[in-house]
Amino acid sequence: MARWEPNARLRLVQAAIDLFCEQGYDSTTVAQIAERAGLTKTTFFRHFPDKREVLFAGQEEHRRLLAEGVAAAPADATPLGAVTAGLDALTASFTPEQREFAPRLATVVAGHGELRERLAFKELDLAAALADALRERGVPDPAASLAADLGIRAFSAAWGQWITPANSRSFPALAHRHLAELHRAATTLT
Amino acid sequence: MARWEPNARLRLVQAAIDLFCEQGYDSTTVAQIAERAGLTKTTFFRHFPDKREVLFAGQEEHRRLLAEGVAAAPADATPLGAVTAGLDALTASFTPEQREFAPRLATVVAGHGELRERLAFKELDLAAALADALRERGVPDPAASLAADLGIRAFSAAWGQWITPANSRSFPALAHRHLAELHRAATTLT
Repeated sequence: MARWEPNARLRLVQAAIDLFCEQGYDSTTVAQIAERAGLTKTTFFRHFPDKREVLFAGQEEHRRLLAEGVAAAPADATPLGAVTAGLDALTASFTPEQREFAPRLATVVAGHGELRERLAFKELDLAAALADALRERGVPDPAASLAADLGIRAFSAAWGQWITPANSRSFPALAHRHLAELHRAATTLT
Repeated sequence: MARWEPNARLRLVQAAIDLFCEQGYDSTTVAQIAERAGLTKTTFFRHFPDKREVLFAGQEEHRRLLAEGVAAAPADATPLGAVTAGLDALTASFTPEQREFAPRLATVVAGHGELRERLAFKELDLAAALADALRERGVPDPAASLAADLGIRAFSAAWGQWITPANSRSFPALAHRHLAELHRAATTLT
């Protein structure tokens, strides 16, 4: 990243979320986001292909962190143990800045059909990354894709709680609790 | 449906799949589909909003059949027992015509990113319908959404086998087998 644009990516995300909340997602242009961030449109497009992707900036890094966490789990870890290691690697990466804008980001996404669809694809994509990493450890299908699905469900549920103002628990603690609850539920299906 | 257009819906689906296979999805227009079916563009738009939706014509009926099947399951059915009843109601509805064009439909969808996304949304939508029907029976979350997810995974896997030329098994038998396999896999996660 160029020296004269410190934190450009984070500044663009924060500016976009501010503007989406103030004047609506549809009414906000890339030029306005760049201006609010004190940057140029050219800089914007160096970081993001369009205004929608600003809200899903972390997807590639999230994929990588999940896969690395699963790969680094002990050799004798169960499938859900490896998923837990993946979630831990991911949730440890969240910063106070992300916690700060997350509730408004969630509000913007929830209020717009196209963004909800994009979020559903992000979740499918992360589940696919988790399942690939489990298969690399020798977990067969369909167990690998089921374990991955439980992991992403636990992540989503934990995220929803982590961003509430009243929450005081850590993201990893919330994710562990939801994964355990999902696994219990899976044993009640017959 | 008007008397002078017998089977218009099915004829449009078959014409669309023929043309998509012959000349590609992107190169095919609604006017060409209507002409191939011996119908007018006006008739096309009475049945479908656009050429993409021709390939996902059954979604509303599939939702309804799944929900009705779940609702009609015996009161003491387990969550997966109720899912099985939903899948049975759905798979019993498939016709020889659908079996005939299904392999080409699958090929068209697999070859086009936008259509694969649309299929993923159909699956999320059907899973949501199944989960709603389970909640109406008193199945709590997250068990309801997990059981629904297993159901749709079993449906997709069974569909993939059902449409292979070599397959001689019934759709319900394939769906039961995949659901049982998924359930077994869910017990191997820890």
